Amino acid sequence: MMISEGILTLLKRGKKSASGGLSADLLSSSLNYPLSSIYDGIEELRKFGYEIETQRGKGYRLISVPDAFIPFEINYNLKTRILGKILYSYQTLKSTNDLAFRLAEEKAVEGTLILAEKQTAGKGRMGRKWFSPLHKGIWLSLILRPNIPPVKAPGLSLCTSLALLQSIKEKTGLEARLKWPNDCLIGNKKVAGILLELSAELDKVDFVIIGVGINVNQSQNDFPVSLKRTATSLLIESEKKISRVELLKSFLKNLENIYVNFKSFGLKYYREDIKKYSTLLGKKVKLQYGKEKLKGMVKDIDENGSLILETRKGKRTVTAGEVTLI
Amino acid sequence: MMISEGILTLLKRGKKSASGGLSADLLSSSLNYPLSSIYDGIEELRKFGYEIETQRGKGYRLISVPDAFIPFEINYNLKTRILGKILYSYQTLKSTNDLAFRLAEEKAVEGTLILAEKQTAGKGRMGRKWFSPLHKGIWLSLILRPNIPPVKAPGLSLCTSLALLQSIKEKTGLEARLKWPNDCLIGNKKVAGILLELSAELDKVDFVIIGVGINVNQSQNDFPVSLKRTATSLLIESEKKISRVELLKSFLKNLENIYVNFKSFGLKYYREDIKKYSTLLGKKVKLQYGKEKLKGMVKDIDENGSLILETRKGKRTVTAGEVTLI
Repeated sequence: MMISEGILTLLKRGKKSASGGLSADLLSSSLNYPLSSIYDGIEELRKFGYEIETQRGKGYRLISVPDAFIPFEINYNLKTRILGKILYSYQTLKSTNDLAFRLAEEKAVEGTLILAEKQTAGKGRMGRKWFSPLHKGIWLSLILRPNIPPVKAPGLSLCTSLALLQSIKEKTGLEARLKWPNDCLIGNKKVAGILLELSAELDKVDFVIIGVGINVNQSQNDFPVSLKRTATSLLIESEKKISRVELLKSFLKNLENIYVNFKSFGLKYYREDIKKYSTLLGKKVKLQYGKEKLKGMVKDIDENGSLILETRKGKRTVTAGEVTLI
Repeated sequence: MMISEGILTLLKRGKKSASGGLSADLLSSSLNYPLSSIYDGIEELRKFGYEIETQRGKGYRLISVPDAFIPFEINYNLKTRILGKILYSYQTLKSTNDLAFRLAEEKAVEGTLILAEKQTAGKGRMGRKWFSPLHKGIWLSLILRPNIPPVKAPGLSLCTSLALLQSIKEKTGLEARLKWPNDCLIGNKKVAGILLELSAELDKVDFVIIGVGINVNQSQNDFPVSLKRTATSLLIESEKKISRVELLKSFLKNLENIYVNFKSFGLKYYREDIKKYSTLLGKKVKLQYGKEKLKGMVKDIDENGSLILETRKGKRTVTAGEVTLI
């Protein structure tokens, strides 16, 4: 199955003009396709979920586009120059991060985007699973190749969260917040999570895979019992169905802006924003980090994206770990 | 070509006993091989470089073993429990690190060792090449899976250097020293280098590839002109030909000891040793780190293996970079 991008482009243009419909004859002559290809193409588009009205004497009119990860729709008016310009979209994948990692090793270019409508083994941090049901969320991975040492990589995770919080605000009005190091919360429920993986020398990252899972259109009943108390979706919080494609495009745009500045100036450019959005600053927390357990007050997030904890034994800088509010 | 490990084992045992030779008949009956297999096996061993004397009436006597990366020789009396127990030895590889990385992704077990007699594209840091001529050095990669966050990985590079310095001392009497972060020097010439690569999440290393290149038996003329001033070998420095196999086995043993303690106690267990061997402590240096350039006095190596620099603007902690003495 292939989408006739020619027909679709004309229908989209037609949608914007007042006149409306485009006849099969007009499409056929504009695209230099035989009429039969136009009929087939329209049917094909309908199968993909495009709603196309046929009015006698007025021809075809595009009523709505499906909210699906169709490369054409994602690229349409996408305002980025790096992120998502190369894009692989799948109905089902085990894990977008795993595929992205393999592609990155095979020299896939910076900005390559992997999307899946469903993941069967979506990855969370520390070997956990990320629940990724069909059509309900955005499950994506991006390949980046910043010229940074690995110690700066946590900053990229925070930048990704920041872009996501901005896009959630833009597209839903909701004020999500960042739980260091990699979760986005609404209230105290997880609406999105970020999983960075990297391949690096000690001096220099070879590539970073940014995995993002966003719970978009799940209803309460879509979550398994084990997640109901801790997870939420944008639909649940906003009580509106959200366009995943529009949210995705906004996110790619916001992340690209931030990423370009991050590469030039480091995290300090966004540190105040990140601190503003953070749920942990000033809070007492427990933190597990490898085998180590710490308790203390969160004082700051530093220029590498590390958490500064004030413990009984003095200040500690923590690059990653599992944080729980006390 | 395959080595008859049965024949070789008996010849090695025979070498230790005073009596000496083992007749073809004795080998044949001990191993339950036909006589023709014994003759073929002896010839095969000679092709691999084993020197085997045939004395009338006394049978075969093993005079010397080749200094080649024959798995049997490396495993023979190897005193490790993790490192090198699984081992792949190649005549020629592009890069042992690249192969190790691929094997690690395919779930190769911790301790897996990759050896090459020659690398055609041996990797140094920062995309540089490591000159790896046939039979002259030890070009190896080890797969480790420590449960540590990536920020602790530089410590592993220092531990590897430490093991190497110990083995060089043991096997040659030479006092090599460590130039942070990853070179081993004799005088001010490079005798070995270490290249760590890792695959990780922000919290946790998935695997680390430790690549090691040791210049063992190159003479001055074996080095290209571009390296003559900056590189040396154990042969040049000690004026003796060194057994690569014995040096390798010693290194695996020393590294395993250190690695086990590193996993339990972190770098602090070896920090004083590392500082003792370091060429940079107390010296004024220039350091390039990503885009950043620093100047200062080297004050310390911290518990993550980072360098503590005293600059005009105060103390700086540097995780990696290119250091030059001023």
